[in-house]
Amino acid sequence: MTASSDTLNPLQRLAALLTRLPGIGEKTALRLALALVRSDSEYVQALGEAISAIHNELRLCATCCDLCTGEVCERCRDQKRDAGVICVVAQPQDRMAIERTGAYHGLYHVLHGVLDPLSGIGPGELRIESLLRRLRGDAVREVIVATSPNVEGDATALYLSKLLQPLGVRVTRIASGVAVGGELEYADLNTLHRALAERRSL
Amino acid sequence: MTASSDTLNPLQRLAALLTRLPGIGEKTALRLALALVRSDSEYVQALGEAISAIHNELRLCATCCDLCTGEVCERCRDQKRDAGVICVVAQPQDRMAIERTGAYHGLYHVLHGVLDPLSGIGPGELRIESLLRRLRGDAVREVIVATSPNVEGDATALYLSKLLQPLGVRVTRIASGVAVGGELEYADLNTLHRALAERRSL
Repeated sequence: MTASSDTLNPLQRLAALLTRLPGIGEKTALRLALALVRSDSEYVQALGEAISAIHNELRLCATCCDLCTGEVCERCRDQKRDAGVICVVAQPQDRMAIERTGAYHGLYHVLHGVLDPLSGIGPGELRIESLLRRLRGDAVREVIVATSPNVEGDATALYLSKLLQPLGVRVTRIASGVAVGGELEYADLNTLHRALAERRSL
Repeated sequence: MTASSDTLNPLQRLAALLTRLPGIGEKTALRLALALVRSDSEYVQALGEAISAIHNELRLCATCCDLCTGEVCERCRDQKRDAGVICVVAQPQDRMAIERTGAYHGLYHVLHGVLDPLSGIGPGELRIESLLRRLRGDAVREVIVATSPNVEGDATALYLSKLLQPLGVRVTRIASGVAVGGELEYADLNTLHRALAERRSL
């Protein structure tokens, strides 16, 4: 199919831009672009402006590197939180997931990635320097590494534990194993391996 | 989870706008919004502007009601096309799908919907008036109704055939049945029903 010079260009241009988003293929992009054409102008304007503005409105918290609108995020400003514990996550949505449990009342630190040498992501690409700065005083007792239990997440956790333990801080990792409510027979091999290896006394 | 007043608002606002697009749920919307935050500013600006501009840049072809940038779309302007045949489709993406086959060289007419009384869409909501106007002369020999073979598509085809046949134009419908390359045993009941009912002599 050749691009028809007059009819499709704005539509195809929009669809092409949309395909650069994660999980949006060519068909979905075209469907979304056509949905936008059919939507009311007010909504389309609002969406366009919200997208254009997102970079200007959001910045990284000076302390924990999470996304926020001010200088320091509301969790870092919250005096009721336990400043002795820092939960290290790879990305903002992981912080949101942990926050949703309602079971954690410490602070966070967002790395904005995990170690992934094959993609050229080394420690210098992650927000590790700012984490070290937070550990300079002796206020922090424990760092909980909450990266995903996959190769990159494990490597990142191992790297951090080697880096932080000499500073006298306790470094822990969130547990991994068979998911709660899941069926043992459907758990994948790697998960079962780890569930066995990390078994606990009752 | 309550909206944290400073951290999430621009992000949640963007995510909420994105959930109004078809097929985009809350999790996908948040993932897309965060992907936009991580994207380079140039791309985000381009996408925001492309979305804001889409309504101004696209209009409906004065003849066939397809989306186009000028007064009349390039297919309606194309002298090499057979102006004696009009293929009626529900929406622009259907026209694109037929155009991709490379097997059709006539003109199109886009209804922008199908008859759907339960959703309050009657003939007045579709671009039928402009189709009738195109049939006033005697240039058009055949109207091919290419609506989808479902209840609404069938009803629309039936309505159009009753409306157009008195005008002395031949009204046809695209064939429906077991998909080419499909397996008979996996075809659904309705498809098999229709494939039997619309069987052809060999």
